[in-house]
Amino acid sequence: MTSFNGIGFIEKKRDCGKHTGEELHAFVDSVMRKEMPDYQISAWLMAAFLNGLDDDELMHFTMALALSGETLTYPPEDRIIDKHSTGGVGDKTTLVLVPLVAACGSRISKLSGPGLGFTGGTIDKLESIPGMDMHLSDDRFREQVNTIGCAVSGHSLKLAPAEGKFYKLRDVTGTVPSIPLITASIVSKKLAGGAYGYLFDVKCGSGAFMSDAGRAMELAGKLTDVSKKLGKVCLSVITDMEQPLGEWVGNSAEVYEAVEVLSGRGPSDTRELCVALGAAMLEMSGRAKSRYEGAELASKALDDGSALNKFGEMIAAQNGDSAVIREPQKVLPKAAFTYEIRSGRDGYLSKLDALLIGEGLRTLGGGRLTQEDVIDPSVAIQLLHKVGSRISRNDVLIRIFYNSESKLKDSLACFEKCWEVSEKAEKRKLILDTVY
Amino acid sequence: MTSFNGIGFIEKKRDCGKHTGEELHAFVDSVMRKEMPDYQISAWLMAAFLNGLDDDELMHFTMALALSGETLTYPPEDRIIDKHSTGGVGDKTTLVLVPLVAACGSRISKLSGPGLGFTGGTIDKLESIPGMDMHLSDDRFREQVNTIGCAVSGHSLKLAPAEGKFYKLRDVTGTVPSIPLITASIVSKKLAGGAYGYLFDVKCGSGAFMSDAGRAMELAGKLTDVSKKLGKVCLSVITDMEQPLGEWVGNSAEVYEAVEVLSGRGPSDTRELCVALGAAMLEMSGRAKSRYEGAELASKALDDGSALNKFGEMIAAQNGDSAVIREPQKVLPKAAFTYEIRSGRDGYLSKLDALLIGEGLRTLGGGRLTQEDVIDPSVAIQLLHKVGSRISRNDVLIRIFYNSESKLKDSLACFEKCWEVSEKAEKRKLILDTVY
Repeated sequence: MTSFNGIGFIEKKRDCGKHTGEELHAFVDSVMRKEMPDYQISAWLMAAFLNGLDDDELMHFTMALALSGETLTYPPEDRIIDKHSTGGVGDKTTLVLVPLVAACGSRISKLSGPGLGFTGGTIDKLESIPGMDMHLSDDRFREQVNTIGCAVSGHSLKLAPAEGKFYKLRDVTGTVPSIPLITASIVSKKLAGGAYGYLFDVKCGSGAFMSDAGRAMELAGKLTDVSKKLGKVCLSVITDMEQPLGEWVGNSAEVYEAVEVLSGRGPSDTRELCVALGAAMLEMSGRAKSRYEGAELASKALDDGSALNKFGEMIAAQNGDSAVIREPQKVLPKAAFTYEIRSGRDGYLSKLDALLIGEGLRTLGGGRLTQEDVIDPSVAIQLLHKVGSRISRNDVLIRIFYNSESKLKDSLACFEKCWEVSEKAEKRKLILDTVY
Repeated sequence: MTSFNGIGFIEKKRDCGKHTGEELHAFVDSVMRKEMPDYQISAWLMAAFLNGLDDDELMHFTMALALSGETLTYPPEDRIIDKHSTGGVGDKTTLVLVPLVAACGSRISKLSGPGLGFTGGTIDKLESIPGMDMHLSDDRFREQVNTIGCAVSGHSLKLAPAEGKFYKLRDVTGTVPSIPLITASIVSKKLAGGAYGYLFDVKCGSGAFMSDAGRAMELAGKLTDVSKKLGKVCLSVITDMEQPLGEWVGNSAEVYEAVEVLSGRGPSDTRELCVALGAAMLEMSGRAKSRYEGAELASKALDDGSALNKFGEMIAAQNGDSAVIREPQKVLPKAAFTYEIRSGRDGYLSKLDALLIGEGLRTLGGGRLTQEDVIDPSVAIQLLHKVGSRISRNDVLIRIFYNSESKLKDSLACFEKCWEVSEKAEKRKLILDTVY
């Protein structure tokens, strides 16, 4: 074992030098062995934030993070596709996509981190289904993928543990919004998860991590490049998150909307995105010869009930109450009270700010500020109109489902500012770009 | 008390923002109260290293560091001048200047940090005089300046304690060589020390912190600018440290050379620098009307024995054996053995590398690698020639005074490479520039 010179390593990045693969592996090892103190790691993080990492450095750093713990493997012929969203408000696509893709005959494994943003994460959403076990062991997870073709589970701490250490430190040192560091963080977890290919949904807009289309494109490009350098099939799409996705925002409400879409109904934007992403996954897995064929397969599975049945199968396999696919409103928790926000004028809905709606939901108890916060799965926001819709005076725009009058009162600061009705407004484009 | 947002503060500097004075004071307070963790401080240090601090930020940061603990004050009419060297090999000027300036009728207070470089610091050098107390209380220090006109003491931990905290972290996070951070560090300690004006000797060359003349000029400019913004009289000189200063390098040997210079003898370069710096201090303190008059006063005090007597007075006041000013070779510790390095050819001495000589002395035991290392005050290097001297084959160039054969052997790697004799070589200029 060669000893790692932490100060020399920091100085190299400080002076815009290029790290070798050997150095980056030694760095991550040193962090994992707790030899490098946090104050040195954070000095390097800031240097990397400001001076960047080039594609080789990024590949080696990603690999080192991925290899810092256990890794899962699947037979390559299974061509399992993993899907990752950078996170947005009302983004329930994973709930739909997992059973949808499996119903079309591809295998899909989805490892999710806990939600630490405005709204809950996929784990939190599925946990609103009574009995649902979202913390499968690695063995059981893999087994379920093999038998029914799909599984969604909380991210095991044993996979890419270094990534978690770095993320925790980035979160408190102002070094989160760096494209290379974000890329390494995302791809390393995927890599440890063992899938054959990745689909990245990079959200862009007020309610997303990337509010700027240029930065979102840059991230999408890096995610694709690094994944390909690491031998993976990969595709990234950039999708709008200026307004929330779909009609519902909130944990149990998003399960409800997913069931609607899986039943061939539901809001058109959620269905559009699920069909597009599903088509890409079916093409990557080899199940469809093209994305056009993939889109046909996906639409059919939504309309013929096969995707819905697969969802029920997965819920049952994870000990959840599968009656949710038939009677979601009976099975899912509901908030006690409702409150409506109406338009004061005629016109077109010109703004439906995803950031403010996400913050409002969190204020109601539907999201976390810290890892320890307990989520209320029943609080929800219903968006009766989307940007570009014709609005008449007194139309209900937003319906709030809440449990606490005081939290409602606090949340109204967000909900009253989150919308605008103007003379004119265009509908927003949902899928902005695709990077192969 | 307003709560300090550490992450927001880091992000501001990360994004090239400008900190307000209020923010910088709150930051230093937060560090002193141990509310801001080291990993956040080091992320900010790296951001400040890479994105810089402008003159206003530098002034406020310096002030905040200076006010983080106790401060000394003197009556302004005393016009006490403090002197600081950025450190070099064989730099014994403080030992000469303190009694010299006091002998000319100006008061001088000198607070020194412990040496943490190649050779010992001023404290270590004076401690080679038997009995010498180099850790005076603040009260006793001030009292001695009032009565005999001068004192040299170790830097009390109660003065500018935040500076020490920051320095310790910079040392292990690759954030030392930043001109604004160095400036804040140096000036904050001076400011807490309470003098009326400052003289900065910025060393430049292989044996100095700044090896590049441009960077040394930049540091000298910042030191002067910030000190003046803070209402201080100030002058910075840039002096050569490509070769060591004077004839002797080593703790007790440098006291010997100081006594020689204070006796009107000694190497011409050491005397030249002491007269020049002394002249500037006498002008700043108002004791001389110009630097020319200051130089005359200083030369006279070296030649008439008054400076030497003042040195004896100061040593006696600090419990040291003042016989050292008459019989330095009897009083000071001496190493047991000598070793000589001779020239293999005729020519001119073209290199006498201060860095390698400093490292060689440290290998012999005369300097520290860590704060805990104990210094051997008796080991020394005698430089019989300086760059530009005519050399004949077999002339002794360097005489090494050592106590351990194995340490001598290790040190020869430095001493055998530290010199060169060539066809031609010019004498080096000592005082390179002055910044008012």
